[in-house]
Amino acid sequence: MSKYVYKFYNNNAEGGAKQKDLLGSKGANLAEMSNLGLPIPPGFTISTEASNYFFDNNQTLPNSLKQEVKKAIGELEKNLSKNFGDPKNPLLFSVRSGARESMPGMMDSILNLGLNDETVYGLEKFTSNKRFALDSYRRFIQMYGDIVLNIEHQRFEAVIDNRKRIVNKEEDRDLDEEDFEWIINAYKNTIERFSGEKFPQDPEIQLTNAISSVFNSWMNPRAQTYRKINNIPDTWGTGVTVQSMVFGNLNDNSGTGVAFTRNPSNGDKVLFGEYLINAQGEDVVAGLRTPFPITKEKEKKGKSLEEKMPDIYSEIEEMSKKLEDHYKDMQDIEFTIENGKLFLLQTREGKRSAEASIRIAVDMVEEKLINKKTALLRVKSSDIDNLLHPTIKPGSKKKLFGKGLNASPGAAKGVIAFSAESAEELSAKGLSVILVREETSPEDIQGMFSSRGIITTKGGMTSHAAVVARGMGRPCIVGAEELSIDNEKYTLSSKESTIEEGEYITIDGTTGEIFLGDLETIDTEPIDQYKTIMDWADEYRRLEIRANAETLLDTEKAINFGAEGIGLCRTEHMFFEGERIIFMREMIMAENKQGRKKALSKILEFQREDFIQLFNTLEGKPITVRFLDPPMHEFLPSGDIELKEVAESSGISFGYAKEKSIKLGESNPMLGHRGVRLAISYPEIYKMQARAVFEALIETNKKNKFSTNLEIMIPLVATGKELSIIKEDIQNTCKKVERENKTEIDYKLGTMIELPSAALRASEISEYADFFSYGTNDLTQTTLGLSRDDSGKFLDDYINENIFTNDPFASIDIEAVGKLVEIATKEGLKGNKKLKIGICGEHGGDPESIKFFEKIKLDYVSCSPYRIPIARLSAAQASIEQG
Amino acid sequence: MSKYVYKFYNNNAEGGAKQKDLLGSKGANLAEMSNLGLPIPPGFTISTEASNYFFDNNQTLPNSLKQEVKKAIGELEKNLSKNFGDPKNPLLFSVRSGARESMPGMMDSILNLGLNDETVYGLEKFTSNKRFALDSYRRFIQMYGDIVLNIEHQRFEAVIDNRKRIVNKEEDRDLDEEDFEWIINAYKNTIERFSGEKFPQDPEIQLTNAISSVFNSWMNPRAQTYRKINNIPDTWGTGVTVQSMVFGNLNDNSGTGVAFTRNPSNGDKVLFGEYLINAQGEDVVAGLRTPFPITKEKEKKGKSLEEKMPDIYSEIEEMSKKLEDHYKDMQDIEFTIENGKLFLLQTREGKRSAEASIRIAVDMVEEKLINKKTALLRVKSSDIDNLLHPTIKPGSKKKLFGKGLNASPGAAKGVIAFSAESAEELSAKGLSVILVREETSPEDIQGMFSSRGIITTKGGMTSHAAVVARGMGRPCIVGAEELSIDNEKYTLSSKESTIEEGEYITIDGTTGEIFLGDLETIDTEPIDQYKTIMDWADEYRRLEIRANAETLLDTEKAINFGAEGIGLCRTEHMFFEGERIIFMREMIMAENKQGRKKALSKILEFQREDFIQLFNTLEGKPITVRFLDPPMHEFLPSGDIELKEVAESSGISFGYAKEKSIKLGESNPMLGHRGVRLAISYPEIYKMQARAVFEALIETNKKNKFSTNLEIMIPLVATGKELSIIKEDIQNTCKKVERENKTEIDYKLGTMIELPSAALRASEISEYADFFSYGTNDLTQTTLGLSRDDSGKFLDDYINENIFTNDPFASIDIEAVGKLVEIATKEGLKGNKKLKIGICGEHGGDPESIKFFEKIKLDYVSCSPYRIPIARLSAAQASIEQG
Repeated sequence: MSKYVYKFYNNNAEGGAKQKDLLGSKGANLAEMSNLGLPIPPGFTISTEASNYFFDNNQTLPNSLKQEVKKAIGELEKNLSKNFGDPKNPLLFSVRSGARESMPGMMDSILNLGLNDETVYGLEKFTSNKRFALDSYRRFIQMYGDIVLNIEHQRFEAVIDNRKRIVNKEEDRDLDEEDFEWIINAYKNTIERFSGEKFPQDPEIQLTNAISSVFNSWMNPRAQTYRKINNIPDTWGTGVTVQSMVFGNLNDNSGTGVAFTRNPSNGDKVLFGEYLINAQGEDVVAGLRTPFPITKEKEKKGKSLEEKMPDIYSEIEEMSKKLEDHYKDMQDIEFTIENGKLFLLQTREGKRSAEASIRIAVDMVEEKLINKKTALLRVKSSDIDNLLHPTIKPGSKKKLFGKGLNASPGAAKGVIAFSAESAEELSAKGLSVILVREETSPEDIQGMFSSRGIITTKGGMTSHAAVVARGMGRPCIVGAEELSIDNEKYTLSSKESTIEEGEYITIDGTTGEIFLGDLETIDTEPIDQYKTIMDWADEYRRLEIRANAETLLDTEKAINFGAEGIGLCRTEHMFFEGERIIFMREMIMAENKQGRKKALSKILEFQREDFIQLFNTLEGKPITVRFLDPPMHEFLPSGDIELKEVAESSGISFGYAKEKSIKLGESNPMLGHRGVRLAISYPEIYKMQARAVFEALIETNKKNKFSTNLEIMIPLVATGKELSIIKEDIQNTCKKVERENKTEIDYKLGTMIELPSAALRASEISEYADFFSYGTNDLTQTTLGLSRDDSGKFLDDYINENIFTNDPFASIDIEAVGKLVEIATKEGLKGNKKLKIGICGEHGGDPESIKFFEKIKLDYVSCSPYRIPIARLSAAQASIEQG
Repeated sequence: MSKYVYKFYNNNAEGGAKQKDLLGSKGANLAEMSNLGLPIPPGFTISTEASNYFFDNNQTLPNSLKQEVKKAIGELEKNLSKNFGDPKNPLLFSVRSGARESMPGMMDSILNLGLNDETVYGLEKFTSNKRFALDSYRRFIQMYGDIVLNIEHQRFEAVIDNRKRIVNKEEDRDLDEEDFEWIINAYKNTIERFSGEKFPQDPEIQLTNAISSVFNSWMNPRAQTYRKINNIPDTWGTGVTVQSMVFGNLNDNSGTGVAFTRNPSNGDKVLFGEYLINAQGEDVVAGLRTPFPITKEKEKKGKSLEEKMPDIYSEIEEMSKKLEDHYKDMQDIEFTIENGKLFLLQTREGKRSAEASIRIAVDMVEEKLINKKTALLRVKSSDIDNLLHPTIKPGSKKKLFGKGLNASPGAAKGVIAFSAESAEELSAKGLSVILVREETSPEDIQGMFSSRGIITTKGGMTSHAAVVARGMGRPCIVGAEELSIDNEKYTLSSKESTIEEGEYITIDGTTGEIFLGDLETIDTEPIDQYKTIMDWADEYRRLEIRANAETLLDTEKAINFGAEGIGLCRTEHMFFEGERIIFMREMIMAENKQGRKKALSKILEFQREDFIQLFNTLEGKPITVRFLDPPMHEFLPSGDIELKEVAESSGISFGYAKEKSIKLGESNPMLGHRGVRLAISYPEIYKMQARAVFEALIETNKKNKFSTNLEIMIPLVATGKELSIIKEDIQNTCKKVERENKTEIDYKLGTMIELPSAALRASEISEYADFFSYGTNDLTQTTLGLSRDDSGKFLDDYINENIFTNDPFASIDIEAVGKLVEIATKEGLKGNKKLKIGICGEHGGDPESIKFFEKIKLDYVSCSPYRIPIARLSAAQASIEQG
């Protein structure tokens, strides 16, 4: 027969902190604290196994449970010298839920259980306080009616209001014993009227029903939603803790409160919390009375627990130390003082701010409470993220305008602009600008750079806007589908309201929320402990961390953030700036190879200069240069007017330019004429790029002591043959440049693995490659058949239906995309044992994905500069967890 | 030491027909014929291994080869009582190439080798014909100069012209002995002048150089191109056959000719061929003299070999029988008559027309020469294809206008039209129309149907135009990138010329060629033997053959062609016709579920009626109904004017319609909001479709004796969860319809596997599926990251560079796409042992792909109706070949 009931009292509890799966977090910690000899009101926990039995068997409790409960109550009665249902000195219980992970406020609790028309007088006698006893009884009836019988709580509030009107009283505290007797009577009528049954006087029936109701609350909509958001499976179930009551509202020598063992907002090592005299826990939560601080504070002189009850305060301090020493973490403690005696009702790991999280982790290592590994595991990647980005000032009055995907974190405010040009103009006038577009394209780069933040109404987590914004460190919200832009009227509308160009909004890229108006944002300066944590992370991580960067600015930023090199330098970004785009377009418009070569020779100059600067900045740190990737049409303007300019500057007719532009258009550009395919059709393009990097390398090495660590990377390869053709071209160019300069060039050649075909043919491809870099953005698109720019429309539906647990562009889809990565890694090493393998998609900066990359033992991850600290921490955590 | 030389003479040859790899086709057959006792001029073959040695060693012959050749010549000399280089009675040789597969005219031959200033008089003496001897000598010098020394043949022709001018003669045949002596002298000077060396008098040097030259001709550009086109690897190498000369041009009792053992154009069992009196083989080929038929013909009374040399004729007839009995196939024989004696120079399998191929195969089974399996392997799928489609009348004067991909076979002519509307108009006027567009979309269907043929300047083998045209049986050429359409002037231009709407063109969809003007096309009526072959194919194939069809017309056609059911009924095609599209657009424009349901309820009626008709036509044959697949925006018009109409008919503002239309637009529709994703977002769509098929099934079964064999197929599934959600929806709808109609419904539910993710998660998906159908079109697009609509731009480059051997949309890419199909098949059967597995992409009708599907033991293939006969034959061949 299963055992469902686990007792805890004095130093003699069944189970402990490690039994969270079985007892729930609350039950496990109560058992643990009991065993530590802390003052816990005795009780017992009904296990999560009973909860699962309950839901597997049509919401019925196991038969054996009643016997177990009866036996446990019997023991408690002996121990406490009180009896359950005893009219003279009744044993009363609280009945609370408690899942493996705390789900604050999501499920139900019932207090004062065991009171009835007789025992209420036992309580009166025992406490010598009739008003208190009656109030406790009416509270119990109300909770029972609400939770067990599903009667709306307004019904009960109406009774109290009614009484107040009759006796002409304003406040609850004015009600006297007579009033409560009247109310108790009315409550019982309410219950009978709305549930069709009488309020049960038998404490055993009360208890059985309460247990069932708490189990049922595991499946209430609120709890289900919470679990969905937090990825908690339904199958965990909840425990039920039945604990003898202590009363913080017994008299003025009683009270209740919450204490953190350290300050949860900044991490200071000092007791922090609030309490109320003569109150129950709900009163603190309900916010009807303003609680006072536990620890002395200047502004609230004389009000603190430290001053009012110094003995209790030092008792809490002592227990606090004991709990931290035991749990090795900052604790969040609930306590009750009953007539001068302190009881602990709960302890759990205290939630804390990003700053506190990092500070406490580092402090505890210094205090020798935990080691560095544990400290690293304590810090969340979101803590690092929050620490490095501005946030909206807490307490700001927010008016939500819309919501989208949180594509790039941080808060920003500004006037809205609907085009890159107007963003630049407004910004030139000294205004902060938020650029709002349906989606962005490479032509918008300058406008994006001039803006403080970006919103797009289309697109997903790896759309152009999202990728570029993260790269620039601009807060960004994408796929805000419910907003619509009117490009003629220059307005942005939600369902409720419309704003015009020039009006202020504030965006929170960390949450994806868009607010009306000009909210105050605050910058954050990383605390010293941040550096300590990062140093420790570097000590423990195995994965190399590189950055995706191509501008000088980004490269410097990346190195400051701790990148060990560039894992993805997208050369196409070098084709857009200034007059380069003119030559690029000239090349595209050229009628033949000769014309293309002429235009390319002009671009060569620029590229070489760019690379010299980058190589100088990197001082020998490796750089993976990806050759041209996007399809040609991305370099052409969309409007006829600009196309006319292109025609003029290229010396061709507009008609020809238009025809060419139409011919270059593609139905599915993502699967089009791009990457290595361009080089197969027009080998001169990659040859020019090869010459540019080789000449830059020679030039840089000549003038410096370091030697440049160059890796050339070919995108969109699907077969070994493609890479072998390109490799030959690049080798030939290399030999030519070597001869011309009478020197030798050292470089590596590798490929992106971003098509399923490439993954499946990895062993053949790796014969020609020194390294692989998974382009998991495109690999996700092709493997799932999911366009990142279009998936915003339905990805929500997919996450709601639990088809995906996460946006697969944010966190790698392990089942399919991950399987291909595993296959390619295995096969790639078959073809080339020395193959270096990394990843340069957006997933390179995602903690969950990094765990997977650590598991399959990739060599490095590369991500946008702002994600570098997160990647460093996540890599260390993954290494510690798996190692 | 390797053996390189293989002798053949009398009944005593080394090797035989099976040694084609080693001896080349010609050498192997000469050995075989020798052993059969046929009159073969004796000689020897130098193996392909020597050829490979030659190219592996800087174009040098193996050392041991000379000795072997010397020895072989010695034996020949003894056998023929002639000596190589003997001034009295010289042994002369022809030196010819011969690869494993015949490469007609691609490589070089040298005749009369062994002649020099002395032996020429031995030949004179032996033949008593000085003019002949001198003519033979000058021919040899000319060939040697051309082939061994690379002197342009015009140099030699100039000499002859020169002589003719001097002696004032018109024709070659007027030249006398003196003239030839002059010419020989001049030839020798030409050789010395242009090659810098004297013409070699030593026959051994002549032979060694000739052998090297013939090897070298394996690598001439002509031969390389031929091999590329015919997928012959360079590594095969060529054999060299050195054979003693016989002379058909000795006198009027001599001659040469070619004979087919049966008529190669219609398969009649009668000797067929041509011959010339007093001529060498080249004369027949060169076409300077008109040859006469071998067999008696009314029109050419008295001219035939049968009449002129009845003994030789019956000798050929006899040998013909012997060869057919031996080779079990129709033979193409080269023969020479030297002074009344018949020699066979070569035999090979005769090339034949589609009709002949089928007729001969069936006849030979009846003659018990071969069995049915062999007959089936003899017929090419292209034969079946040619037999069922009209062709351009042979001998038509063609003027090529452009070329594209041969997307749908057959010839058609008509006036060009640039829009579906004008195609309909012109067709209504009784004109034949060729529709010419950049690409087609579902809106063009009616116009395509009204046209005789279709050209698109964009797109690939599985573009919309290609798929639809094949389905309709319309000849179609896609991706004619070199043509450009001017939609304002209504003209179509190639680089050379421009034609206007209304002008005639003729297209050959079998070759992809577009011709100017109005060429005559001829229809073909399948011969009786076609039916026999098809019956045999059905006997031997294992794969079930189904059709992709959704209209009544196509379904009937498919059944006539022998389809065993419908493997893909694309329901979206049912949404386009007539007023349905209005309701569809209404549904798309609906603001909420209620609105969508209202519009869907109208479509329900139509769909149910369509299905009733289809089910009735199929009479219980299985039908796989694929639920809605394309993204919503495909149903919306592209122009504002039509969109206004949509807005009006849907009762919404144009602004709203426009906004909705923009919002629905996608960057990569192929990877967008389509297939099962629509049903996850809008479950009501598939529920409506389920109701339509279920109600149609009940209705059909009620009125008929058969019971409908329904399979519902869900497109674009990537995960098991998606299918499980949809399955539940469909099951619920089924239960509802069952209750409403008080009956039970029998159906199967399956899914397309068309995303890499689906293939990789096949075991999880198959838990919810009764069947899988590989959508290899989309699977190819996603696996290779290759848009079928855009790949036309560069696929040629890819095939030229040997990256792909075939268009992967025409023939399945086995390396990557095939690997996923294999993985999915294995994993799918893990999840569901009874899983039925087929394929419904375009590859279902491709012979090479069918081989692969047979190999991995799929259950069925489904293809467009016109491909059904090919699929039946190919499936039988694959089954026979794979044993």
